[in-house]
Amino acid sequence: MPLLSRRLLLGTVVCTALPLHLAAQTLTQNAKKSGHLVIIGGAEDRQQDRIILRKFLELSGGPTAKIRFITAASGVPDAVWASYQAVFRDLGALDCEVVPMLTREDASKPNVISQIANADGIFITGGDQTRLMACLWESPAFQALHRAFFVNGACVAGTSAGAAVMSRHMLAQGTPTAAPQKDTVSTDIGLGFVANAIVDQHFSQRHRLSRLLSAIAQRPDLLGVGIDEDTALIIEPNQSIEIAGKGSVTLVDPRRARTNREAIEDGDKLEMLGLQLHVLPAGRRYVLPPLTKARKPSSPFGDALEQLAKPGPMRG
Amino acid sequence: MPLLSRRLLLGTVVCTALPLHLAAQTLTQNAKKSGHLVIIGGAEDRQQDRIILRKFLELSGGPTAKIRFITAASGVPDAVWASYQAVFRDLGALDCEVVPMLTREDASKPNVISQIANADGIFITGGDQTRLMACLWESPAFQALHRAFFVNGACVAGTSAGAAVMSRHMLAQGTPTAAPQKDTVSTDIGLGFVANAIVDQHFSQRHRLSRLLSAIAQRPDLLGVGIDEDTALIIEPNQSIEIAGKGSVTLVDPRRARTNREAIEDGDKLEMLGLQLHVLPAGRRYVLPPLTKARKPSSPFGDALEQLAKPGPMRG
Repeated sequence: MPLLSRRLLLGTVVCTALPLHLAAQTLTQNAKKSGHLVIIGGAEDRQQDRIILRKFLELSGGPTAKIRFITAASGVPDAVWASYQAVFRDLGALDCEVVPMLTREDASKPNVISQIANADGIFITGGDQTRLMACLWESPAFQALHRAFFVNGACVAGTSAGAAVMSRHMLAQGTPTAAPQKDTVSTDIGLGFVANAIVDQHFSQRHRLSRLLSAIAQRPDLLGVGIDEDTALIIEPNQSIEIAGKGSVTLVDPRRARTNREAIEDGDKLEMLGLQLHVLPAGRRYVLPPLTKARKPSSPFGDALEQLAKPGPMRG
Repeated sequence: MPLLSRRLLLGTVVCTALPLHLAAQTLTQNAKKSGHLVIIGGAEDRQQDRIILRKFLELSGGPTAKIRFITAASGVPDAVWASYQAVFRDLGALDCEVVPMLTREDASKPNVISQIANADGIFITGGDQTRLMACLWESPAFQALHRAFFVNGACVAGTSAGAAVMSRHMLAQGTPTAAPQKDTVSTDIGLGFVANAIVDQHFSQRHRLSRLLSAIAQRPDLLGVGIDEDTALIIEPNQSIEIAGKGSVTLVDPRRARTNREAIEDGDKLEMLGLQLHVLPAGRRYVLPPLTKARKPSSPFGDALEQLAKPGPMRG
C-alpha cells in the first residue's frame, strides 16, 4: 500500500506536496459525481498569470467545456460579462456564454434552465449577494444549478458576492467594526453548496475579521471562512480542500468557544473565548481521509476541514 | 466558604461580575508587593471620561500619588509632557513630574534614578520603542524601574510604544501585511515586565493581526497580544487581568499550533494551524486561581491568562 493511502486510512490530514496529477489519481478512486466549488475572495487576477481562472477552466473540463456566466449579482452585468468573455477567450475557452438571467422571471425560463443544467462550469460574478439570491431563491434555475453541481459534476465558481452565496448561511450585510459586536451583521440564505460555514470575502484587504467573528457569534455551529482577494478556496466535497491564487484563507472555528452574546445588548462588544484559528496560504492542498462511520477527526484542524468540505443537501 | 473562593480553589477562571471593591478585597488576601501594569493600545481618551488615565491614577494610589512620566520614546517629548501634565492636573493629580531622561547618559543620573525609584506611578508615553530602549536598556534607570515595580509596588503604565516595551520580547519593526508572512517583523528586548507575550498596539485600528501572527510564528512559545486604541490591558501579576477603556484585547496563543515556517523562505506566506484566539472586551475582569504546584489550567483560555499574568524576573 503506498504511503499516502496508508496515512489517509489512519485518519491523518495530509498536506500533499505531491504533483497534482498524482494526487488527482489517488482521488479518482473515491470519485463522486458532485463537482468542485471555486470560492474566490474577489479581485481575482484577470490580466497576469490568472491562476484561479485557469484552475476553474481546468476543473470544468478544459478548453471545450461549456462555461456559463451568471451576472445577476451585478449592477452592470453587460460590462462584467464583456470583461470575463475577453479573459476566457484569451485563456482558450471555446464555449463561453452568459446566462440571460437578471430577474426572478428570467429564472424560470426554459433556455436559462437548460443553459445552467447543461453547463460543465458555472461562474457567478460579483455584485450584491442579496440581489442575486432575490433572483435565484427556490427558482427552477436554482434547482438546475443544484442538479448541475450535485448530479452532473459541474464546477461552480463564485467571486466576491458570488462567493458569499456559496454557503447555506450567507453574510448579507454588516459594516466592519474594530471589535466584534453583538448582532451588527445580518445573515440570509444562500445557495447551500457549503453546509457548515459562513463565507466572507475581500477578507484581509477590507479588514473583516471582526465582522466574521460577529457573524459566527450568532451561529457558533458554523465555521467562519475569510477569503482574501485574488485567492480561491477550492472544495471537492468530502474529499479535499485547496487554496489557490495569491493570498490566504482564514478559518475561525467557534464550536468549542464560549461567548457572552446572551448576556449583552445589541451593538455591545463581544467576549469570545477559545476560538480556533487556522490560516491557510495559497498553494496548500489538504486531502481528507475517507469517510467511515468510526472515524474521529485527527485534530481540531482536521475537524474544521471536514466541516468545511461537507456539502449541503441537493435541492430540486 | 464563599462561592468565589471555592471556585477559585477548584482552579476555575472566574470572570468577576462582582463589584470592584469586593473583588479587590478578595485579592488583598493574596497581595504581593509588585504593582499593576496598565498596557494601553495608544490613543487613550484624554478629553472625555478618561477611564484609563483615571484607573492608572487610582492604581498608583490616588491624587497624592507621586506620578512620574517617561517621555524618552517621543520625538517631541516637551509637547507630550505638556499634554499629559494638563490632563492629570485636570484629573486632580497633585504630584506629577516628568523624568528628565532623554538620552542614555541621562539614564545614569542620580536625580533620574531617584525620581523613578520613588514613584508610585510611572507613565511611559508613546513614540518609538527602539529609541526608548536604546536609552534605558540595562541602565541604572532601568533597574530603578524594576525595583519600583517589583519591590515598591509602583503602577507602571505605557501607551503605544510605551506598551510595546512592557514585554521581554518586543515587536520592534514590521510593516503590516495582508496575510502573515515569514520573518517580516523584527523583535528586540523590552522592559521585561511581562514574561511570555509579544504586545502590539493600535491593533484593530491599524489592522495588525497578520503582523502579530508573523511575530508569534517566530516565537511560538509566546502569546500574541493585540491591544486596541483607547483600551488598556491591566495586569496584576499572577493575580488578575482586566480590560479597561473602549475596545478589545485580542490574545492569540500559538503554543498548540503548527506552522510551516521551517519549510518556507523569508517573505513567503505562513500556514498556521490550530491557533487559539480569545477576544476580551473592555469591562471584563478575570481573576486567576491561587498558584499551587498541583494546579492545572482549567481551559486553553485559563492557561493563556496564566501565561499573560506571569511577570518576568526582576533585574537590578
